[in-house]
Amino acid sequence: MSELGSPERTPDAQTPDTRDDDAGDGIQASQRMLSFSDALLSIIATVMVLPVMHTKIYPEQHFDRSMQKLLATKIAVYLMSFLIVTVAWAAHIRLFQVVGKIDDTLALLNLVCMMTITFLPYTFSLMVTFPAEPLGIFLFCVCVIAIGAVQAVVVGYAFHYPHLLNRQIACSVHRVTLQRHILGILLRGPALCFAAAIFSLFFFPMSYLLLVLVIVLPYVSKAARWCQEHVRGPGEPPTQTLQFFPFDLHEPLSKERVEAFSDGVYAIVATLLILDICEDNVPDPAEVEGAFHGSLVAALGASRPRFLAYFGSFATVGLLWFAHHSLFLHVRKATQPMGLLNTLALAFVGGLPLAYRQTSALARRPREELESIRVSCVIIFFAGTFQFATWTAALLRQRETLHPTVWYGGREHALMFAKLGLYPCASLLAFASTCFLSRFSTAIFHLMQIGAPLAFLLLRLLLRLALAALRGLRGLAWPADPQPSGRGQDGDGDRADLQAQLLPDS
Amino acid sequence: MSELGSPERTPDAQTPDTRDDDAGDGIQASQRMLSFSDALLSIIATVMVLPVMHTKIYPEQHFDRSMQKLLATKIAVYLMSFLIVTVAWAAHIRLFQVVGKIDDTLALLNLVCMMTITFLPYTFSLMVTFPAEPLGIFLFCVCVIAIGAVQAVVVGYAFHYPHLLNRQIACSVHRVTLQRHILGILLRGPALCFAAAIFSLFFFPMSYLLLVLVIVLPYVSKAARWCQEHVRGPGEPPTQTLQFFPFDLHEPLSKERVEAFSDGVYAIVATLLILDICEDNVPDPAEVEGAFHGSLVAALGASRPRFLAYFGSFATVGLLWFAHHSLFLHVRKATQPMGLLNTLALAFVGGLPLAYRQTSALARRPREELESIRVSCVIIFFAGTFQFATWTAALLRQRETLHPTVWYGGREHALMFAKLGLYPCASLLAFASTCFLSRFSTAIFHLMQIGAPLAFLLLRLLLRLALAALRGLRGLAWPADPQPSGRGQDGDGDRADLQAQLLPDS
Repeated sequence: MSELGSPERTPDAQTPDTRDDDAGDGIQASQRMLSFSDALLSIIATVMVLPVMHTKIYPEQHFDRSMQKLLATKIAVYLMSFLIVTVAWAAHIRLFQVVGKIDDTLALLNLVCMMTITFLPYTFSLMVTFPAEPLGIFLFCVCVIAIGAVQAVVVGYAFHYPHLLNRQIACSVHRVTLQRHILGILLRGPALCFAAAIFSLFFFPMSYLLLVLVIVLPYVSKAARWCQEHVRGPGEPPTQTLQFFPFDLHEPLSKERVEAFSDGVYAIVATLLILDICEDNVPDPAEVEGAFHGSLVAALGASRPRFLAYFGSFATVGLLWFAHHSLFLHVRKATQPMGLLNTLALAFVGGLPLAYRQTSALARRPREELESIRVSCVIIFFAGTFQFATWTAALLRQRETLHPTVWYGGREHALMFAKLGLYPCASLLAFASTCFLSRFSTAIFHLMQIGAPLAFLLLRLLLRLALAALRGLRGLAWPADPQPSGRGQDGDGDRADLQAQLLPDS
Repeated sequence: MSELGSPERTPDAQTPDTRDDDAGDGIQASQRMLSFSDALLSIIATVMVLPVMHTKIYPEQHFDRSMQKLLATKIAVYLMSFLIVTVAWAAHIRLFQVVGKIDDTLALLNLVCMMTITFLPYTFSLMVTFPAEPLGIFLFCVCVIAIGAVQAVVVGYAFHYPHLLNRQIACSVHRVTLQRHILGILLRGPALCFAAAIFSLFFFPMSYLLLVLVIVLPYVSKAARWCQEHVRGPGEPPTQTLQFFPFDLHEPLSKERVEAFSDGVYAIVATLLILDICEDNVPDPAEVEGAFHGSLVAALGASRPRFLAYFGSFATVGLLWFAHHSLFLHVRKATQPMGLLNTLALAFVGGLPLAYRQTSALARRPREELESIRVSCVIIFFAGTFQFATWTAALLRQRETLHPTVWYGGREHALMFAKLGLYPCASLLAFASTCFLSRFSTAIFHLMQIGAPLAFLLLRLLLRLALAALRGLRGLAWPADPQPSGRGQDGDGDRADLQAQLLPDS
C-alpha cells in the first residue's frame, strides 16, 4: 500500500477556487450541494427518535413488560434506521468522490436521490411494525433500488461528460473499466435488494436474509481483506483491476463531510426538546385562568421539569459536540473504523433527548425516575465512550489520520484524552452513586449537569495541576533520572520532544 | 467610500489553513463552530412554524372567524420570531467577524449564547399569547440581555487575548477605541431591552414601544445614513471615529454563513412533513386489523394525500433551494438588502409545509381545498419573488456583490432570470387558473408540481430555443443592423461581449 500521508492525494475536488474556471458552462463546485445533502441526511437519520420520544406514558400506567417491549422495539427501529441512513450517506460520499464537479442536471438528480433516501426510515418502520407483511420490505427494497438507479444515472452522466469527474479519474486511460468497476460497487446492494423484492412477493423470510447480507457485506469483505492481508503478509501486490485505480474506494470518508453530518445531528438533537416545548408548553390562556387562577408564573412553574430537562440536554449535547469538534480539529482524514465509531457515538447522542424527556415525564414517581436517570447515564456513557474510541482509532493510525502537529503526543494529547474522558467518567460516577445514594439521584444528576461545563472550562487548569502533581511525584521517586525509561535509539528524539511538550515548566 | 472589489479585503479569517500555525495553544479556526451555530439557528428560526402546522382543524369545525384569527396570530408569531432569530444571527455574524479565531473558552461561551437564543421564540410566543401579562416581555428582555452580556464577554475576552481577533483589528493601533465602539454597537439593543424589562414591571406598554425601537433602529439609522449621503453628496468624508476602522460593520454578511443558514432552513423545511409522517402515519396493527380488514395497502392508501403532499413540498423546497444555490454560486458577498430579502424568502419557504399540510388535511372539502391551494400558490409566489429580488439587488451593485465572470451579463444572466422566474410565474399561472377553473384546481396544482422539475431540467434547452426565436424575430425586424442600439463609446466593448455570450451561435 502506498504512503497516504501527502495531502495532495485527497480525492475530493471541493475547493471553492475551482469554480471560476468554468462557471460559464454551468459547471459548479459540489461543496454546497454536499453540505445541503449532509444537513438533510442528518435530519433524516435522527427522525425515528421522535416516535420513541412521543410514546405516551400515562401516570396511571405501570412501566410493565408490554410497555418495555414497545419502547425497546421503537428504540431498535431508531438505531437501525440511523445506521441505514448512514450507510446511504457513506454511499453518497463515495459517489461524489468520483464525481468532482456538478452541473444543474446532477444537482437535480441529487435532489431526487435525497427525496428517496428520506423515505427509507418510514419504510423501515413499516417493516418492523408489520413483520409478517411483505409490503414493508417490498417498499424498502424499491427505495434502495430507486436510490441505486439514480446513483447509476449520476455515474453514467458524469462519465459521459468527463469534465465533471474527479480530475484523477478524468485523466485516467482506463476510464471505461473504471466506470464498470464503480457501477459494480454501487449496484451490488440494489441488485441484492432487487432479488429481495422479488422474494418478498412469494417467500419473504428470504428477503430478510438478503437484506441482512446487504448491510453485513461491506464489513465481511473488509474483514476478509484484512485477514488475507495479515495472513499472506503485506507484500502481496494489489490485483490487476485495482492497480490503475487512482484512489482507494474503501476509505471514503472526507473529513468535511463527516463534520457536516455530525454537526447536523448534534444541532437537531440539541433542539429536539425546544421544538417540543415551543409546541406544547405555551400555556393556554383559558387553562391559566382556570387551573392557575390567572397566574402565568404558576402555569410556567408547572412545566419547570421540562425546562430543566431542556437545559440539561442542550448542555450535554453541546459539550459532546464541543468534544467532537476538538477531536476533529486534529483529524485530517477519517478512516472507515473511525467513521463507524463516530456513527455509533452519534446514534447514542440521538437517544439523549429521549432519556431527558422520560426523565421529566417520570419525575414524580421516585422508582421510575431512578431508572430513567440511570438510562440517561448509560446513554451519555456510551456516547462519550464511542467518541473516545474514535480518537483511539485515529491515534492507532496517526500518520494517516492526524495533522502532523499532533503526531508526537504531548500536552494536546493529554488535554484531548481529558476532554473525551470527562463525560464517560462523570456519567459512570453518577451511575455508581445512584446505586449507593438512590434517594439523592436527581440531585446527583443535576450536579453532574452543572459540574461538567465547569470542568470543561477549567480543564486546562486542572490538567496542568494534575501534570504538576505527577511531575512532583516522579521527582520524589527518581530524583536523579530525568529520562526514566528510554524506548531505544530511534524513539529518543520523539520522547524528549514529548516530554518538553508535556512538562512545559521543566 | 473605498473600492470594495478586492477579495483580500474580506474581514473573516475563516480559512482552514490558519489552524496549523497555533494549534498547540488551543487556538482554532472558527469555521466549524460557525457552521454548527448556523445549523442551530436555522432550526430555531423555523421552530415556531410547528404550532401553526399542528393547529387542529376538526372535520366538523368550520373555517370560521375565530379559527382564522387563531391561525393568523400563530403565523404572525412564526414570521416575527423568524425575523428576531435572524437579527440575532446577523449580530452573531458581526461578532465573529471581529473575533477571527476561537479557543475552548470562546467555543463554550458560544454554546451558552446559542442556548439563550434558542429560548427567544418561546418567550416571544408567550408574549403574544398573553399580551396583557408583563411576564412574557420581561423574559424576552432577559434573554436579549443575557445574549448581549455573553457577547460582550466574548468581545472582552478576545480583546484581552488579541491573537484571537481578526488580524486587521489585532494590528490596529486604535484597539481600545475599537473595542469601545464595538461594545457600543453590541450593547445598544440589550440596553434598550434593559429599560424595557424595568418598564415591564410597572408600565409594560412602554416596553413594547422600546422593543419595536430595537428592531427598527438599525434600519432607521441605515436609512438616515443613506439619505444623508444622497443629500449632502458622496464627497462627505467619514467621521473621525470610523476612519481608522478596518472594515465596515454595517455590511456584515459573509457569503458562507448566509449559505449555511439558508441550507439549514431549506433542509429543515424540506423534511418537516416527513417528520410528521414518520411519527403519525405508521399505521397501528390493531387499527389495520379492525378498520381495514388486515389490508396494509388499504391503510396506507388512506393517508395517500399526506404522501402526495410530502412529495410536492419536498420537490418545491428542493427546487427553491436549487434556485438559491444557483444564485449564490455567482455571489461573492451579500449586502444588507440582499440579506434582508433572502431572509424574507426563507421565511416564506418556512411556510410551505404549513400550506401543504393544510392542503392534505382539507383535501376532502372542496371549498377549503380551493382556498388552501390558493394559499400555497401565494406562499410559493412570494418565496420565489423574494429570491428574484435578492438577485436583482445583487445585480444593482454587481461589482461589489458578484464574481467578475458574471459582471457583463450574457447567457448566464438570462439563465438565472429564467431559473428564478420559473416558480413565481408557475404559481401565478396556477393561481389565475384556479380562479377560472376552480373545479380542476387540484389537478392544476399537481400539474404545476410535476411540471416545475421538468421545466428546470429542460431550462437550458428552452432558453436556447427562446433566444433563437428572439434572434430570428430581430433578424426579421432589422436585417442589416447587427448592433441595433449602441450605448455610447465606453459601453461598446461590454455590449459586444454580452452579445457574443447571449447569442453564441451567431
